[in-house]
Amino acid sequence: MFDKSKIVHSNVVAEATKQALIRRGVTLEDIAEIVYELQIPYNEGLEMSHCLESVKGVLRKRELQHAILVGIELDELAEQGKLSQPLQQIVESDEGLFGVDETIALGSVFTYGSIAVTTFGHLDKNKTGIINELDTKKGRGVHTFLDDLVASVAASAAARIAHRSRDLEESGETFEDVLPGDTMPETKIKGAKI
Amino acid sequence: MFDKSKIVHSNVVAEATKQALIRRGVTLEDIAEIVYELQIPYNEGLEMSHCLESVKGVLRKRELQHAILVGIELDELAEQGKLSQPLQQIVESDEGLFGVDETIALGSVFTYGSIAVTTFGHLDKNKTGIINELDTKKGRGVHTFLDDLVASVAASAAARIAHRSRDLEESGETFEDVLPGDTMPETKIKGAKI
Amino acid sequence: MFDKSKIVHSNVVAEATKQALIRRGVTLEDIAEIVYELQIPYNEGLEMSHCLESVKGVLRKRELQHAILVGIELDELAEQGKLSQPLQQIVESDEGLFGVDETIALGSVFTYGSIAVTTFGHLDKNKTGIINELDTKKGRGVHTFLDDLVASVAASAAARIAHRSRDLEESGETFEDVLPGDTMPETKIKGAKI
Amino acid sequence: MFDKSKIVHSNVVAEATKQALIRRGVTLEDIAEIVYELQIPYNEGLEMSHCLESVKGVLRKRELQHAILVGIELDELAEQGKLSQPLQQIVESDEGLFGVDETIALGSVFTYGSIAVTTFGHLDKNKTGIINELDTKKGRGVHTFLDDLVASVAASAAARIAHRSRDLEESGETFEDVLPGDTMPETKIKGAKI
Repeated sequence: MFDKSKIVHSNVVAEATKQALIRRGVTLEDIAEIVYELQIPYNEGLEMSHCLESVKGVLRKRELQHAILVGIELDELAEQGKLSQPLQQIVESDEGLFGVDETIALGSVFTYGSIAVTTFGHLDKNKTGIINELDTKKGRGVHTFLDDLVASVAASAAARIAHRSRDLEESGETFEDVLPGDTMPETKIKGAKI
Repeated sequence: MFDKSKIVHSNVVAEATKQALIRRGVTLEDIAEIVYELQIPYNEGLEMSHCLESVKGVLRKRELQHAILVGIELDELAEQGKLSQPLQQIVESDEGLFGVDETIALGSVFTYGSIAVTTFGHLDKNKTGIINELDTKKGRGVHTFLDDLVASVAASAAARIAHRSRDLEESGETFEDVLPGDTMPETKIKGAKI
Repeated sequence: MFDKSKIVHSNVVAEATKQALIRRGVTLEDIAEIVYELQIPYNEGLEMSHCLESVKGVLRKRELQHAILVGIELDELAEQGKLSQPLQQIVESDEGLFGVDETIALGSVFTYGSIAVTTFGHLDKNKTGIINELDTKKGRGVHTFLDDLVASVAASAAARIAHRSRDLEESGETFEDVLPGDTMPETKIKGAKI
Repeated sequence: MFDKSKIVHSNVVAEATKQALIRRGVTLEDIAEIVYELQIPYNEGLEMSHCLESVKGVLRKRELQHAILVGIELDELAEQGKLSQPLQQIVESDEGLFGVDETIALGSVFTYGSIAVTTFGHLDKNKTGIINELDTKKGRGVHTFLDDLVASVAASAAARIAHRSRDLEESGETFEDVLPGDTMPETKIKGAKI
């Protein structure tokens, strides 16, 4: 039987995810900037703070946290030359037909609907902001998984804003009427999980 | 440009979805029963009312509402013989390699993570409860899309309970400690969208 | 039991798909042009004829044929005002959060791996060639589903060439060494199905 | 720029995949047995040798080979206690809400269409044959990723047979008319890639 005492608490996973991103040089602000750039054309009154909150909200999802932990682990192991061959060489060279990096990232993108999937594809091809800097092929460390994971978080947070924007529209509001801290009210209450 | 005055209000879509299910003979209770059967082995204190609330929560998602509207429309058009050939015959006979029925249903299943996808696959093969009764091959109308959509709603609602159950566990609670109306607290507040 | 006499023959489905695309103003050459534009930067010696053959190969897939038949049917029904409300209005206005159009298209994109998924996302956002001309918002008929389906075919055909290109590389060849008619040798023999 | 000299040859990846499965105690025959059990009710004349050939065909796919290499690497690292915390504990205990194991497996399942996805879900829940023996919770090593990957290969190979079966039907044949070595004729010719 499954031993419940062995379950890692959500808070531990959330904190580890946060630390892993920082360790790999990615701040939540970096991701929020991509979200802002994606959504500002469609959303009057949108501010960086709304985007940042959306990124934080998205990062509360278990599946995304797990995906980030796995991806960064593989990047770091590859950097240290600790994967077995031929996987070591495949990850190290970030080759285009590998596919597992996109697959892991897509897993969490799906949870924000098809609009998130197309945005992910767009970011993956056009590599904006921090995603571009992480490009493994540039030679500063291995980020074969991380660049896709960052694109995944950004695409999900942008999709979230697109949906929220419609909700506002329907009540005759825009993001100008929303305090940054109120973008995702559902995350503020005990027992809520998105 | 996109004409915003033409946007259909969320409430209209939600209500149309509800009416379409009723018209096709599927009650939320029918779906909740499948959810209960799936989750009771793992969740002490789980009641039908928790499952029913989870089904209602899942049905608030835009993508799922749209999928249901499209699927039921195609079923009804096929019943009335109004699709063009050869699509009419393919839908009418609910053939196994069609695939579009599962694809549409999967779109919304994805939004509840990989546990929802595997549960959907299980339901699709083992057809429990109302899903079995809807089987087009039994000859009582065309439900080629609807049986998959019902499996999709049930799988999503079950996945939601699995996640919620973990949250409860972490705070030392079980479903016994949760009032049925409190299963999805995040849906109770203004501006929240899951 | 499933009545085998009712099964529509593959050839009928394939022919209907071809006719539906022509009826809606999309030629295989239009799609091949998008593929060419996507792949020429990476493939020395690639010609339009290779791309055209790849498009034809992709269109032999059952799931993609079914997706195209369903999508075009819904576009045409919407054009004729024959869908029930509110679906009629949603499809007619091609609204961004609908999602079912991308979902149906994604179903077949998946069959060509994650590289096809990201390419699809890219095409969906950047709308090149015929995809742009099909934009429902331009007012020449309803193509809410068709633009995504064309992006799906193009993304799949491009992914196919990317994989084939690697195979050539490994045997020390480029597309210059491949007769257009030999791009997909596996489709040339009896009983083969990709 | 991407250094082509660093690309790992397909044959090396294919061989490494084969060796990894053997090292972890999974034979192609084990997987073929699951396929046989899934498909025999629908296919007159189907033999184990047809199933084995379908498994081999599926394993020729790059994305699936990569997925298997990544998954087994993570299983083995976890067994050796070499993953960092909390990932080590999550993988070691194979917890139900992890999700990355199913996500990686699903990536390749998708390439065989929606029928493969539902079959995968069915196998994941009902754990037949070798999948059951691999269950990490039984305490004989860590197979958190491998059980899902085996389900993925089996589901894909079964979907392949379902499609092939339809092709046979349309030419008035059954599997009785097919030599085991002719199940996937498209894999027999130079330059073919499925």
